[in-house]
Amino acid sequence: MTEPTRRAPLSADPLPASGAWRPGDPVGDRRFVTLPPERAFVLEGGGVLRGVTVAYETWGELDADAANAVLVCHALTGDSHAAGRSGPGHPTEGWWDALIGPGRALDTDRWFVVCANVLGGCQGTTGPASTDPATGRPYGSSFPVVTIRDMVRTQAAVADELGVERWLAVVGGSMGGMQSLEWGVMYPERVGGVAAIATTPAASAQQIALSSVQRSAIVLDPRWRGGDYYDAEPGDGPHMGLAVAREAAQISYRTEAVFNERFGRKELDPLDDRYTLWQRFDVEGYLDYHGAKLARRFDANSYLVINRAMDLHDLGRGRGGLERALARVTAPVFTLAIDSDTLYPPYQQQLIHETVRSLGGDATHVEISSPDGHDAFLLETEAVAGALVPFLNQLEKGDR
Amino acid sequence: MTEPTRRAPLSADPLPASGAWRPGDPVGDRRFVTLPPERAFVLEGGGVLRGVTVAYETWGELDADAANAVLVCHALTGDSHAAGRSGPGHPTEGWWDALIGPGRALDTDRWFVVCANVLGGCQGTTGPASTDPATGRPYGSSFPVVTIRDMVRTQAAVADELGVERWLAVVGGSMGGMQSLEWGVMYPERVGGVAAIATTPAASAQQIALSSVQRSAIVLDPRWRGGDYYDAEPGDGPHMGLAVAREAAQISYRTEAVFNERFGRKELDPLDDRYTLWQRFDVEGYLDYHGAKLARRFDANSYLVINRAMDLHDLGRGRGGLERALARVTAPVFTLAIDSDTLYPPYQQQLIHETVRSLGGDATHVEISSPDGHDAFLLETEAVAGALVPFLNQLEKGDR
Repeated sequence: MTEPTRRAPLSADPLPASGAWRPGDPVGDRRFVTLPPERAFVLEGGGVLRGVTVAYETWGELDADAANAVLVCHALTGDSHAAGRSGPGHPTEGWWDALIGPGRALDTDRWFVVCANVLGGCQGTTGPASTDPATGRPYGSSFPVVTIRDMVRTQAAVADELGVERWLAVVGGSMGGMQSLEWGVMYPERVGGVAAIATTPAASAQQIALSSVQRSAIVLDPRWRGGDYYDAEPGDGPHMGLAVAREAAQISYRTEAVFNERFGRKELDPLDDRYTLWQRFDVEGYLDYHGAKLARRFDANSYLVINRAMDLHDLGRGRGGLERALARVTAPVFTLAIDSDTLYPPYQQQLIHETVRSLGGDATHVEISSPDGHDAFLLETEAVAGALVPFLNQLEKGDR
Repeated sequence: MTEPTRRAPLSADPLPASGAWRPGDPVGDRRFVTLPPERAFVLEGGGVLRGVTVAYETWGELDADAANAVLVCHALTGDSHAAGRSGPGHPTEGWWDALIGPGRALDTDRWFVVCANVLGGCQGTTGPASTDPATGRPYGSSFPVVTIRDMVRTQAAVADELGVERWLAVVGGSMGGMQSLEWGVMYPERVGGVAAIATTPAASAQQIALSSVQRSAIVLDPRWRGGDYYDAEPGDGPHMGLAVAREAAQISYRTEAVFNERFGRKELDPLDDRYTLWQRFDVEGYLDYHGAKLARRFDANSYLVINRAMDLHDLGRGRGGLERALARVTAPVFTLAIDSDTLYPPYQQQLIHETVRSLGGDATHVEISSPDGHDAFLLETEAVAGALVPFLNQLEKGDR
């Protein structure tokens, strides 16, 4: 009889209850800003946090005028480690390492590049795994709902700390693009340019639906314990729920064509004389790999909170609609679409572009061709750089 | 503070541990064939079943030559109740009711229409919820893996019982189309025509990936209990896992455009002064509805087994590839594609069509335009009928 007869385990080594970075872990390249604990940070959704800490990283040098700073905003499961190697404190290589560095698109010989872990995250910025100063215990289920706007407000505190009155550009893909757009709307005087890649003016019904199923997978895991699992023994955290959420997401990040080409019907656990439910095709091994990898470095509650923030993203909310929101933007707006992206389809970036143009704003739109779907914003680094660099150069020259 | 603060429950009334039909429940329109218990039914995957029962329904009258019989094959969560109202024993209206009846596409004034619940199912045919004669207990986790070919072999037993030597046509959509194709390959002499709608010659990597995540959601549910949950108290079955699997599937059955139009960002639980993780957008209420509806009438283990059978579907397996498999088909082959179907994209039906044609077979291909994605095979009944009826008429006249 063929093994496996059950679903593959995530790992031979039990994972800690949460993949969150915790104080005491290696700091790596992180720096921190902590907001004054005596001042309540009131969230858009009505919650209140005190003493919010934001972890961030920087590359390059801020010039004397503080005019060469570029903010890079990360996506759902990213963090401040946008560039650099993996190592103590940083479980993975920088997620945009190919784009950030000397001579690269975000050229650290010219620009001062900053990336901050988002509010609600789990890599140094205050999130559900952080200690609630009111109780001395992890927030867990009591962590409030945050929005993209709340994330942007914490990034403004990082700018203040660094002495950056105005970003040369704010750049982001996917949820990072939601942040760059909100920067343009919320702080028009502080943004020289908005670059929004593979993102949307407002989460669509399909995006919400996919998010919702991912949240449901986490909640299904009995080890999620209603969100209060941080004291669990290694191996007893909600890793499987988080992994299944990631597996569902991973399918939406890629394309049918790439799956056909890369995996087809190849078998990882060969079918032989006795079929079981758990012999895996190659593509299932790929999903398992991505699920397990995320479970090792992420926190399930952060996934819930950030994924919900994405659903709540709507530039027009409380502002009289999309047009009136985008009318606040004074900076040039660069949008980038990926032709095969079915999760953030090109029409969404086109809508941003066309609305800005119709308002008389400065708008540039580029569509790149890639087989890789949504993840092309991470994978097609040459094409993204090729589109982004001219925009950044023009911003620097003051041509726009 | 706004409710809900937790994920919505499936139902106010606790559901029985399994939504399977069990002997003693109202029989409704079902009839049954039971294979001789003394003869082992050896499955393609190596398992053995004894005393397999197949539940089926019929509409219309078999003519004296037994030449007017049409077999309709159901999809993943369908059953033998392809036509007719809901009522005792039948939780839902016939899934193709608009196509089957007097004067309808599958005209029961002319044809004798048959639909059987698939092997591994939960609506009367032997499946995981059935009693294992060897133990007197439900099979549960010991139920073997079945394949589409095994399903077709049980349908051949129904044909024998009914005295149908040769079907005028075998018709099916989605997994039903997998069965109609296998009929053509396995029993060429018993099939007058094959109609394969929104289906594939072999499950693609993306189809497997989506299936795999759905299986994982069921397994995540602690109430699944390794597959042995049939003694659980009402409300204590793996309904939530099954519901989440269905929710994930439901997204793949429809389209982004329809979701935008129908739901957009409408709120079901209005956001007010305090946001929670569990206030639902309209589209989430839609998913909850479909998840809960399936949990009420289906069995989680059947979902696992049938969903796995779909992944294992590959006409060419063990036959030297797709061409050699389709070369066995002597019947005319009708394929129907839905232009917006991203789950079973048109290229898959075209591949069947082109392969049959290249082999000199009789092949007809129709593509219908619909906004509804894969589910158009259930929803666009007029368009499906309009394409199917000419094919059936030609078969009846012996024109093909």
